[in-house]
Amino acid sequence: MSLAESVLQGNRLALARLLSQVENETEEGLAELNRLFPYTGKAHLVGITGAPGSGKSSLVTQLVYALRHPAPEQKPVRVAVVAVDPSSPFSGGAILGDRIRMRELAGDQGVFIRSMASRGALGGVAASTANLVSVLDAAGFEIVLIETVGAGQTEVEIARLAHTVIVVEVPGLGDDVQAIKAGLLEIADIIVLNKADQPGVENAERALRTMLELASARGTLSGNAQPASPQWTPPLLRTVATEGRGVQAVVEALYNHRNFLCQSGEWERRERLRFQTQLENLFQAALIKRLHETVSATEYGHILDRIVSRQISPWKALEILLDGVVQ
Amino acid sequence: MSLAESVLQGNRLALARLLSQVENETEEGLAELNRLFPYTGKAHLVGITGAPGSGKSSLVTQLVYALRHPAPEQKPVRVAVVAVDPSSPFSGGAILGDRIRMRELAGDQGVFIRSMASRGALGGVAASTANLVSVLDAAGFEIVLIETVGAGQTEVEIARLAHTVIVVEVPGLGDDVQAIKAGLLEIADIIVLNKADQPGVENAERALRTMLELASARGTLSGNAQPASPQWTPPLLRTVATEGRGVQAVVEALYNHRNFLCQSGEWERRERLRFQTQLENLFQAALIKRLHETVSATEYGHILDRIVSRQISPWKALEILLDGVVQ
Repeated sequence: MSLAESVLQGNRLALARLLSQVENETEEGLAELNRLFPYTGKAHLVGITGAPGSGKSSLVTQLVYALRHPAPEQKPVRVAVVAVDPSSPFSGGAILGDRIRMRELAGDQGVFIRSMASRGALGGVAASTANLVSVLDAAGFEIVLIETVGAGQTEVEIARLAHTVIVVEVPGLGDDVQAIKAGLLEIADIIVLNKADQPGVENAERALRTMLELASARGTLSGNAQPASPQWTPPLLRTVATEGRGVQAVVEALYNHRNFLCQSGEWERRERLRFQTQLENLFQAALIKRLHETVSATEYGHILDRIVSRQISPWKALEILLDGVVQ
Repeated sequence: MSLAESVLQGNRLALARLLSQVENETEEGLAELNRLFPYTGKAHLVGITGAPGSGKSSLVTQLVYALRHPAPEQKPVRVAVVAVDPSSPFSGGAILGDRIRMRELAGDQGVFIRSMASRGALGGVAASTANLVSVLDAAGFEIVLIETVGAGQTEVEIARLAHTVIVVEVPGLGDDVQAIKAGLLEIADIIVLNKADQPGVENAERALRTMLELASARGTLSGNAQPASPQWTPPLLRTVATEGRGVQAVVEALYNHRNFLCQSGEWERRERLRFQTQLENLFQAALIKRLHETVSATEYGHILDRIVSRQISPWKALEILLDGVVQ
């Protein structure tokens, strides 16, 4: 039986092995991934992002717990977590509250947690994450939580990867973070104000609401990306994730947003955007590979020598390379 | 007279105009950039990175001031700043201490500050920054400080762009940031422990030294990238940047590192690495452009449709696109 078949039958060991193969981009891994692709498209992909120290990992842990232990009338959902954040406690020392929760989740067959190294080639993280997520989707996880640190361009890439983006904010991180916050708000479908038991929470909420209104007036909120689509107003929810407070409301917001996505056609629009990004990443990677196959290391080194000595510019060098690779 | 010629003659207005053209990637901008390229290669490129809130911008401001107002026996250096960080106060409300310093720098012909929007296409920021830096280099700035927020992949890209990387740390940002710190340390040539008047500075310094020793033992420090090259031990320097304390020592470390780079051959190795990255970025961008020229929007949309409906996988789609673009 192939790895892909074992994964489809719910074999966790096979899943772990396939994820490693996919992350290392082995030939077998990519072939199996191709085989699994028709089985994808069911999972609700949820990106969770925020500044370092905002408590993303605690929130993720509690979300997983809440999704696995719902109210009696609801069915528990199978959840996978991909922690792209290199600082994620999933890749190391979780804080105490999380550890207790994680112990309660240990042995739960409906939960799968995977952390991945965030250092790859340019564009590599996004492509690699997309691949892992596809495997987990095919493996039947109904929700895949993708945790990343929100700074630089990563957050935009997540937004393109996920159906729903949760942005985690905290009171009082200082002025320096305001602009990052504002940038993150533009891609938020759900805003979580975590550590809501800390001083400054009222101010933080007021500031966030103001930024939201500004963004809404400019029409830059994610739900508004297509003016014709029905509007989604990102809810602002307070949590104390380490204690699980407010987490149930986040779960409900997730389900509400999923309904909104399906009914408005936004789900499909985001799927397209996601694959477009993935396709462009794949395309770039393939051509860089071809570049290194076509132009020998010696030749390439010689071109670099001439740039370093300022005999030719990088743009002239580009022309030479393009002539070699694309006729 | 062309813009490039005016820039070479020290015309600041021409410089500002050319930078805008280059950032917007106009045809004229790129042509002028090509013309300026032979005049580049003299500037010492210094990346400054750190978590949000670590006081990077204050440090940059004070560094500029110190470089412009050296000890009587030294010559002031011409300095340019490129702030890539979207949260940088250079793009908005600087804090009070910085504002006073900046006012003192206003009208100084030996200083040029430029902030750029960090949201571009994938790989776009690195390419765009490299271009701006080239113009400033050709314009005769002896030091170009490149400020970016250190999280995600950005820091690695800066390391490839800069000759010297300064990593700014602060006491007590919490456990969540430890792993990011460790990641940043790997690319640090100089480590600045800023806000050294705050509690926890002793602990922070101890933790940083431990991480440095670990990294050094693993041989992952930047000076050790080539085992054969003489070793550079990144100095750990305390500052209170808002008050200018400890900044002179950072300036000296910068000069020391430059000497090390030149004497060890590491300067040229980094130049090569930088152009290799730039060339690959240019190559990718050129091929994506060609993709959109070769494959019509309708055709491309049709391919995406088939992926979204899971009729073909993204890898199959890639083959179709490659067949179209590269024979």
